[in-house]
Amino acid sequence: MEPVTLIGLAAGFCTTIAFLPQVLHTWKTKSAKDLSLGMYSIFCTGVVLWLVYGIVVKDIPLILANGITMVLALIILYFKLTFKD
Amino acid sequence: MEPVTLIGLAAGFCTTIAFLPQVLHTWKTKSAKDLSLGMYSIFCTGVVLWLVYGIVVKDIPLILANGITMVLALIILYFKLTFKD
Repeated sequence: MEPVTLIGLAAGFCTTIAFLPQVLHTWKTKSAKDLSLGMYSIFCTGVVLWLVYGIVVKDIPLILANGITMVLALIILYFKLTFKD
Repeated sequence: MEPVTLIGLAAGFCTTIAFLPQVLHTWKTKSAKDLSLGMYSIFCTGVVLWLVYGIVVKDIPLILANGITMVLALIILYFKLTFKD
């Protein structure tokens, strides 16, 4: 595998899995007042669009990465809307 | 422009600009305890790797989107480290 491909895979792994610690953090503290509703609304919209884009262009890495990110980001958005400030 | 390209551009716009409301939110409240340090550490690492990847493969949209996201995510990470819980 080319070194540049490894960099891309590491990049995708980090930006996808990064949302897991936030899910766990918010689940444990049951507090989401410092999270921006605007951020998670816009971000979830963007990730859904990336997923649609990946499906249309039939790009498996795009579909996988954005599928996982979408689930994690939607959980955080749900927490933001559920755990009242 | 192909409709699929428009979807990709809209997706990139959303996932890039999404971090701006979080920057403004945290700047206004001066509170970052609900933000996960793990998330922003891993996410910033990933975005820097995406930027390196974009530079190596000479992909202008990747460089632009991740350059902007990197600045915003690093500001949030700085806030997390600065605004004590």
